[in-house]
Amino acid sequence: MSAVPAVRVALLGAGTVGAAVARRLTDRADLLEQRVGAPLELTGIAVRDVSRPRDLAGVPQGLLTDDPESLVDQADVVVEVMGGIQPARGLIERALAAGADVVTANKQLLAQHGVELQDLADRAGRSLEYEAAVVAAVPVMRTVNQALAGDKILSISGIVNGSTNYILDMVARLGVPFQEAVQQAGDLGYLEADPAEDLDGLDAAAKIVLLARVAWGEDVGLEDVQREGITGLTDADFENARGTGQVIKLIASAWCSGPPSARRVEVAVRPTPVAADHPFGLTREGTNMVIIEAESAGSLRLSGAGAGGDETASAVLGDVVNVARSRVAARD
Amino acid sequence: MSAVPAVRVALLGAGTVGAAVARRLTDRADLLEQRVGAPLELTGIAVRDVSRPRDLAGVPQGLLTDDPESLVDQADVVVEVMGGIQPARGLIERALAAGADVVTANKQLLAQHGVELQDLADRAGRSLEYEAAVVAAVPVMRTVNQALAGDKILSISGIVNGSTNYILDMVARLGVPFQEAVQQAGDLGYLEADPAEDLDGLDAAAKIVLLARVAWGEDVGLEDVQREGITGLTDADFENARGTGQVIKLIASAWCSGPPSARRVEVAVRPTPVAADHPFGLTREGTNMVIIEAESAGSLRLSGAGAGGDETASAVLGDVVNVARSRVAARD
Repeated sequence: MSAVPAVRVALLGAGTVGAAVARRLTDRADLLEQRVGAPLELTGIAVRDVSRPRDLAGVPQGLLTDDPESLVDQADVVVEVMGGIQPARGLIERALAAGADVVTANKQLLAQHGVELQDLADRAGRSLEYEAAVVAAVPVMRTVNQALAGDKILSISGIVNGSTNYILDMVARLGVPFQEAVQQAGDLGYLEADPAEDLDGLDAAAKIVLLARVAWGEDVGLEDVQREGITGLTDADFENARGTGQVIKLIASAWCSGPPSARRVEVAVRPTPVAADHPFGLTREGTNMVIIEAESAGSLRLSGAGAGGDETASAVLGDVVNVARSRVAARD
Repeated sequence: MSAVPAVRVALLGAGTVGAAVARRLTDRADLLEQRVGAPLELTGIAVRDVSRPRDLAGVPQGLLTDDPESLVDQADVVVEVMGGIQPARGLIERALAAGADVVTANKQLLAQHGVELQDLADRAGRSLEYEAAVVAAVPVMRTVNQALAGDKILSISGIVNGSTNYILDMVARLGVPFQEAVQQAGDLGYLEADPAEDLDGLDAAAKIVLLARVAWGEDVGLEDVQREGITGLTDADFENARGTGQVIKLIASAWCSGPPSARRVEVAVRPTPVAADHPFGLTREGTNMVIIEAESAGSLRLSGAGAGGDETASAVLGDVVNVARSRVAARD
C-alpha cells in the first residue's frame, strides 16, 4: 500500500482499446505507480451496456458503470476511448471544466472539434493529450509537438493507415488483384465498420490534419484536405507502377507553402507511386511510417504498428503517465 | 515587444553545437516565443576565450563571456554544450542548486555522473533534459522516457554512432578496404578528436547506458557494457558476411534478463552481422537507427541523422522549449 494519494483515472469506453487500457492499468499497476510517483487508481469504466460480456481479465467487474457523468466528475484523468462525436465531446468538455486532464484516441472528434477542445483545455489550464489518435504507439505527435518544438518543421508525410497499406502491399508484392485484396482485408476484419474510413482516406485525413495543426499552429480542418482514396485505383495502375520499379502507397502529407507573409498549410491524402526501395516503398503489411522534415533536424523517420488495441493502449497509457506525473509534481 | 517576462537562457559552450544553438535562438526568436508563450532571452554564452573568432552570425558579440558562474546564477535555463567532465559538471550542479532547469548534450558526463545529477535535479524539483545526448534530433530519449512511459520496454537496439556506420557502409556497399575506410573517415573529419570514442564503441556505450537507465530505472554504468569496437575487424570478416547476404554493423543493445525477482539489465556494443535487407542493414552512411521493442507497442523504429551541429541543436532547443513552457505554465 502506498501512502501517496492515488491519481484517479476514469475510463470511457471498453472496446478493443478500452479493454486493453483497463487490463494494463491493472496488471502494470506497480510499474505505473513507480513511473508516476503515485498509484493510478482506475475508478470506473463507463459503457453503454454493463451486462455485455467483455475481455476484461483481471479487471473487477464492479468497475463497469453506465453513468459516465458521475465518473468524470470524480476523476483526475479522464481517458476517452469510446469513439464517435457524442457523447464523447460533451464528456471531454465536462472533464476539462471539472479540472481533469483528458487523454483521448478519438481522431475524428479531434479533427472536427479539436481546436475548440484544445482552447477549452488551455483556458482550464489542463492537458488534452492524443498521441494514440495518430498512428497508435508510434510517437509522431510527441515528436512534432515536443521533440521538434525548437525547430522549424518543413513537411510531414506518411503511410498512416494500416488497412490500405495492407491492401496495396498485397497487390504490389504478392500480385493479388486489387479488388480481391480489398475483399480479403474486409474478411480479415482489417477495415473499419464503415470501410470508406480507410478506403476513401478519411482516417488518414484526420491524422494528417491533427499533425499539421500542431506542426504549424494553424486551424487546418478536414475540409482543407486534398483527398483521394484508393477505390479509384485499377490493376493497370499497379502494373504501370511495377514497370517503373515503383509501388503505389496511400501517402498523407502536409507542408507549408507561400511566403512568410502569406503562409499556407497544405494537406493532402493521395495514392502516390514511390520507388520500391524508398522507405515508404519498403513499408509492408499494416506497418505505418512517418517522415518529418525539419530545418535543423533534417529527415526523421518513425515507424511501427499504427493500429491495434494493445498498440493504441500503449500510447494512451504513455499520455496518462505523463499527465499524472505533472499532477503529482504540482501537488508539492 | 512582449509584455510577458522572458525566460533567461544561459549557454555554456560555443563549439559546433553551441554556435548553432545561439544562432537559432536568435533567428527563430519569434517562433520560439510563440511556442513557449514567452520570449527566450539568450543572456550570455560562456567560452574559454572570448577573443577567438566564431561562427555566430547574427548573435551579438557582447554575449560572450568567460565568467560562466555569473551567467549560471542569473539563468532560468542553462544549456550545457561545452563537453568534458569539468567544469561542465560543477556548472550543472550550480545551476540546479540555483533553481535553473538544465539541458545538456554531454553524453560522457551523463554516462559517468548522470545518476547523481538526476538525483540532484529531482531533489531541487528541476528538470535535467538530454535528448541531444542520444542520437541528436532522433527523439529516442523522449520515446523511452515519455511515449512508452505506460508500457513495458523489452529491448532497445540500434546503430547509434554515425562515424562507424559510415566506415562499415563504405566497406560493405562500396567495397573499400576496411583500413582505408577508417582513414577516409578520419580525413573527412567524421571521427572524434580521440578516434577511440567512435572506433572502440565508447560513444555508443554512453548512449546505450543512458537509454537503459531510463528504460528500466536501473543504475547501469559504462563499466556494465559488454563492449567491442570495430578496430579488430578484418576484410575477411566483411567478406564472410557478404557471402551470406549480411553486412556488419556496430549494434548497441540493452535488454532485461532474468526473472522479475532477479531482473538484470544487460548492455552491449558489438560488431554484429545483420541481413543486408534488415532495417539495420539498410541504414547507410552516417544515419542512425534505433529499434525499441515494447510489450504493448510492439516494435518501434526511429531513424535520422545522429550527429551534426544543427541536428544536435534541434534536440537541445526542443528540450529548452519544453522546460521553458513548464516554467511559464508554473508562473500562473
